[in-house]
Amino acid sequence: MSELTIWTLDWVPQGPRGFVRDLRLRWACEEAGLPYKVQTITFEDRETNHLDRQPFGQVPYLSDGELKIFESGAGLLHLARKSDKLTPRDPAGEAETVQWTIAALNSIEMVTVPWWFLKMSGDADNALAGWMGKRLDQLENLLRDREWLVAGRFTAADLLMADVLRVPSVRSFGDQPATEAYVKRATDRPAFRKAHADQIAHFEAADEMRKGIR
Amino acid sequence: MSELTIWTLDWVPQGPRGFVRDLRLRWACEEAGLPYKVQTITFEDRETNHLDRQPFGQVPYLSDGELKIFESGAGLLHLARKSDKLTPRDPAGEAETVQWTIAALNSIEMVTVPWWFLKMSGDADNALAGWMGKRLDQLENLLRDREWLVAGRFTAADLLMADVLRVPSVRSFGDQPATEAYVKRATDRPAFRKAHADQIAHFEAADEMRKGIR
Repeated sequence: MSELTIWTLDWVPQGPRGFVRDLRLRWACEEAGLPYKVQTITFEDRETNHLDRQPFGQVPYLSDGELKIFESGAGLLHLARKSDKLTPRDPAGEAETVQWTIAALNSIEMVTVPWWFLKMSGDADNALAGWMGKRLDQLENLLRDREWLVAGRFTAADLLMADVLRVPSVRSFGDQPATEAYVKRATDRPAFRKAHADQIAHFEAADEMRKGIR
Repeated sequence: MSELTIWTLDWVPQGPRGFVRDLRLRWACEEAGLPYKVQTITFEDRETNHLDRQPFGQVPYLSDGELKIFESGAGLLHLARKSDKLTPRDPAGEAETVQWTIAALNSIEMVTVPWWFLKMSGDADNALAGWMGKRLDQLENLLRDREWLVAGRFTAADLLMADVLRVPSVRSFGDQPATEAYVKRATDRPAFRKAHADQIAHFEAADEMRKGIR
């Protein structure tokens, strides 16, 4: 088996801890039982210090032996091809896992992240709120009737959708009990808890290092 | 070979013609030489008349025999797995095609579409403009050195990235000559021209039908 490495930042402020997207890849590896290492780039010059590996200056990226893959969604689909813990292997199950992974990225996160960005910029009642409400309602309707998005079982698509939806600003947007229960089901999984605790511990260890340096 | 059908609207107003996302799937089929049919749902009640096939009430979706796939990005990745005209088959080339397809959807379109939406809502100078400018500059830097995104050849990732970037509001955002040339290279391809002309003709034929009905 080739060696998986998840690349993330060496440190971030308190705010994003638990939400840095390396969590998506950690969580997937934990679900699949795939061993992995974590390596880091420095926070300070993050916008420019790894443009050769990630042209938008973001994290995470994944390396798998000689392969290097950026975009958390692409890393997730790569891991899903390695383990049927992350996707069914029949053509319909596999296609629907990709479909719902892309839906999380391009139909839900495409509005939740810009909406949050505008809210953080001081415009909470922004023009994206109507669009966001519509998408979250459509998802709520769907989640009333199903436990997981694809084939009645947890897949990579649930991992990504739950990660998009668990963001506090999204959870506080309105009352969606089926979505709330879905996010709870996903984040109660031992693999999520392990990945989340590991990310928190990773950044806390960096705090200790920084204290030592000062 | 199973039968491919691209589902789109029966009619749209002039504005979106040439930009409805069934074009992504038409273009991919044309590049790959995959035969396909086009079928339609009605424009008037589009938000609710196909929620069993597309839970957000959008088009396109693709059917491939018994398989049904929504999200244009997912349909495109499905078609790419059928034809090496759309992706190299070596592990690095395939992973990078998925990576750049997701980048188009989640790093570029995630800002260009909400930015456009706010602009259309009357807020041209909105808070997403800085983020959008940064992403387009990063892409411009990259496109100065390469003809296509992956493996020195046209792939599904270029198809999607060019479709995201060719939107007039994005093209008019700022001066990006390498990106301009890239979009021109992609949209000069015979497969794009055929797909584009077919979409325009599809909606024009619907105009004629509507005249007949009145």
